[in-house]
This record gives sequence, structure tokens and C-alpha cells, in this order.
Amino acid sequence: MPQPFQTSRRVEFHDTDAAGIMHFAAFFTFMEEAEHEFLRAHGLSVLSFDEAGKLSWPRVSARCDYKAAAKFEDVLDIQVSISRVGEKSLTYDFAFSRAGQPIASGQMTSVCCRFQADGTPRSVPIPAAILAKLPAPH
Amino acid sequence: MPQPFQTSRRVEFHDTDAAGIMHFAAFFTFMEEAEHEFLRAHGLSVLSFDEAGKLSWPRVSARCDYKAAAKFEDVLDIQVSISRVGEKSLTYDFAFSRAGQPIASGQMTSVCCRFQADGTPRSVPIPAAILAKLPAPH
Amino acid sequence: MPQPFQTSRRVEFHDTDAAGIMHFAAFFTFMEEAEHEFLRAHGLSVLSFDEAGKLSWPRVSARCDYKAAAKFEDVLDIQVSISRVGEKSLTYDFAFSRAGQPIASGQMTSVCCRFQADGTPRSVPIPAAILAKLPAPH
Amino acid sequence: MPQPFQTSRRVEFHDTDAAGIMHFAAFFTFMEEAEHEFLRAHGLSVLSFDEAGKLSWPRVSARCDYKAAAKFEDVLDIQVSISRVGEKSLTYDFAFSRAGQPIASGQMTSVCCRFQADGTPRSVPIPAAILAKLPAPH
Repeated sequence: MPQPFQTSRRVEFHDTDAAGIMHFAAFFTFMEEAEHEFLRAHGLSVLSFDEAGKLSWPRVSARCDYKAAAKFEDVLDIQVSISRVGEKSLTYDFAFSRAGQPIASGQMTSVCCRFQADGTPRSVPIPAAILAKLPAPH
Repeated sequence: MPQPFQTSRRVEFHDTDAAGIMHFAAFFTFMEEAEHEFLRAHGLSVLSFDEAGKLSWPRVSARCDYKAAAKFEDVLDIQVSISRVGEKSLTYDFAFSRAGQPIASGQMTSVCCRFQADGTPRSVPIPAAILAKLPAPH
Repeated sequence: MPQPFQTSRRVEFHDTDAAGIMHFAAFFTFMEEAEHEFLRAHGLSVLSFDEAGKLSWPRVSARCDYKAAAKFEDVLDIQVSISRVGEKSLTYDFAFSRAGQPIASGQMTSVCCRFQADGTPRSVPIPAAILAKLPAPH
Repeated sequence: MPQPFQTSRRVEFHDTDAAGIMHFAAFFTFMEEAEHEFLRAHGLSVLSFDEAGKLSWPRVSARCDYKAAAKFEDVLDIQVSISRVGEKSLTYDFAFSRAGQPIASGQMTSVCCRFQADGTPRSVPIPAAILAKLPAPH
């Protein structure tokens, strides 16, 4: 059975705010960094180019639920797993913890898109070559 | 009946990414800016100090659903409204559009907190002086 | 004699850090926003597309000297002027103040570049159509 | 003779912009992250609390000179060294490279400050306990 992918990030000074804690929006950049590290670990990239042009994964939704504050220089463990593989989309689940204490949980759904000549993304079925590299959802 | 608060923001270059569109996490900083402008319009601030110390509003949840891509220099209209007033929390709804076209919708719930001497936030009932300044939810 | 272009920005919560003040790197995004507003005021954009492809202005240098701390919700006035027009580059000067008190001063030099097929920027002389729209340096 | 401190950072998607390259302001957050990692490697933190209150290091100047563009997922090597120890300030030099190719160089000067009750930083001589932990400048 597939295990969640694990990584970690330190809360940097620019991630904090005047309330003295990690800014809520920084959890989304941490999720994205973890997602992309997960993709690289499977031989993939969130931005790729093939004969048909640029392929990338804009989000259709992103959410985060916050359980406890994180502070400057805290090291957050981040678990990444795929909870759903759609025809054109992937849904990722994220769990943030600090020394075993839950800090936040998040979810993002990204859609496989080709970019038109004018830069507009258009959703397409996930190419088989990409699907073959992804772990089974759990 | 109270109308939603309206503001707007231009997509800045640092809000974009290598896919050529507004980065998904930037919608959260736009929501926060709109929330704070809403609070200022009602004589409030998200960070205040009184005789009992520092009062601020960490989030317990934040989400965004994306409908269309936004690009550099697009001007996004942002509607802000309060959809729920809890004993200790406020839930805000956000609607992003560009020239009338829906771009994204979001929601954030923030909890009224006092910060302890060690910097840890602890939730408290929303002070009456703040409640009195807020518009009724709709 | 040309006057400096003036704009202003409010220090947003995500611009602050755990020291309780505006984060030093946020001054660079403010400078960029002011530069782009300056360009728009002259009928230009930092990112444009013509028959020869994508034209943009990567920086070759950026600096900021900080004189006093700025805080959340401070409104900073920003003066923008062009101090040098090179064959391929523009140098901008920025002065930040709050209610007349100097807060910071900055400088950025941007180079006019075409982007190659592989995405690499290559410097080119500033097109005459752009030069014609710029104010004289002072 | 002391060697420069070495670290590295990957260019994340949120560090890029619509020109397809690493955004110029992201070099400053990379410098800050490298500075803080350098301080931790010497048993220090950029934000500390002692009996006299909060001690931190606001910048008085920051600059970056850009030599070549960096792209999404590039790994940048960052050398950090202290080029000057003043009575109240430290000046850091940074060199960014990718696989040996120079990408950028930067410099930041930070001032040792106590924060007043109202949150205003005031410069103070660098405490002897901190100086004792720093490597000699080179």
C-alpha cells in the first residue's frame, strides 16, 4: 500500500507576519513546494513542454484548515498524498505537523492544461505517460 | 439590507508565475487585503492593541475556488461580505471578477485571539466594541 | 522640467514580519509596482508582445537603503523617476516617505530584452517607439 | 582562514514570474534564508529574546546584481560570507551560481536593534555573546 510522501520546510522570516506567526498564505506556498517535490520524486514536473506545447496544472481549488500557529524557524513536516485521480485533475491532501503536533491540513485540486497561443489554459485529459508515473491514490 | 463591500486590485508582476497567469496563492493575499480594507472601512483593524494586550485574527480556514485565469495587469473586482458571525469568529465570503466575468470565489474564517506573553494566540469572544462596528451578515 | 511620478502603497499584513515591521524584501515589490504604474502612466507595459515576440525588462541591479521602519497599515508615498536612459537599459530612482518622513530610497536598472524560443532573455536596444513615450531623465 | 558558508535553494514556482524566470525580488528572500541558515550554523538566530527584550537585525541596505536568469526548478548554490563587522552592524556578501555559472551577487547590511515598547527598533552595539560566535570577516 502506498505511503504518503514526506518532506519538511522551515518557517522562514519572510513567512511570518506582525502577529508573530507564520502567515496563513505561506501554507499555500509550502503546499505547492511539497506538491512539486512529490512530482519530482516521481519523475515529473508541474511545468513541462512537449511537441504540443506547454503543459501545466492550474488549480481549481485550494484550501487549508489551521489547527495551531507555527513560528519563525519551526520545522514543519508535510505529508503529501493523492486522494483522487480524475480524468483531467489530481487532488492532493497535505498534513502539516511540528514534532508530531498537528498544525494544519490542506487540499488542492489541479487540472491538467495545455496553454493556448494567447496564454489561456485549456483543460485536457491527463496524458498516459504522466498517469503511469503517479502512485495509486489512497 | 447591507450591500457587499467592493474593492479592486490589479494583478502585479510578482503575483504572476511562469505559467503566465496569476499565481494561485496570490488570491489569498488579495482576500486578506480586501478583508483588511473592509475592516478599515468599518473603523477596525486586524491588529489592535488595548489594555489587555495584542488582539488579532488568525485564520482557522481559508479556501479558494478558481474559475478562470487572471493575467498580469488585469484589474480584479473583489466583493467582500460577512457570511457568519460566531461567538469568537468571523467568516468572510469573497467573489473575484474581471469586467463582470467570474474569476474565483473564496472564504476565510478568522478567530478573535489574544496573544499570550510567549506569543501564542488564544481565542476569545469577539469584544462588544468590535461587534458593534460590523455590518450584519447577509 | 519633468516632475517625479508619485504613487502610494499601504503596507499590507503580508508585507510585515515577526519583527513587527515591513519586511525589507517587500520594498522591492513596492518599487516594482511603482515602476509598472509609472510605465502604464506613459502608455507602456513591462511585458509586451509584438511581431518579434515577447519583450520584457529583467533587472541587472536593484538596491534599497532603509532609513526608518514602516509598519502595518502605514501609507508610503513613492516617488519614481528615471535617472538614466541607456542604449539598452533604464535606471529608476525611488524615494519612499511617510507623511514627509523619509523611509527608504532605492534604485533599479532594467534591461530591455527579447526572450528566445527557449525562454532565455537577450538584451536589445530600447525600441524607438518605447523611447518616444518615456519622459526625459532628471 | 575561514571559508564562505555554502547552502543551496531550488527556484520554486512561486519564485517565478510571467517572464518565465525567477522574479528579481525572490533573490532577496533567498539571501535572507541563506543569512539565517548561516546564523543558525553559528548558534545564532536573527530574532532573539533576552532579559532586555527583543533583539533583531533590520537591514539598512540590500542590493543585488543580476548576471543571468534563473528558471523554475534550477538549484542555486549560495555562498555567504561576512565582509564587515561594525560596532552595530554586519555586512554580508552573497554569491549565487548554478552549476558553477555565476547568476547573481548580493550584499546586505543589518543593524543590531532592540525593539522599544512601541515596536520601534533602536540600534545597539552588537552584544559580545553574539560577536564571540561569528566567524572573522574575510
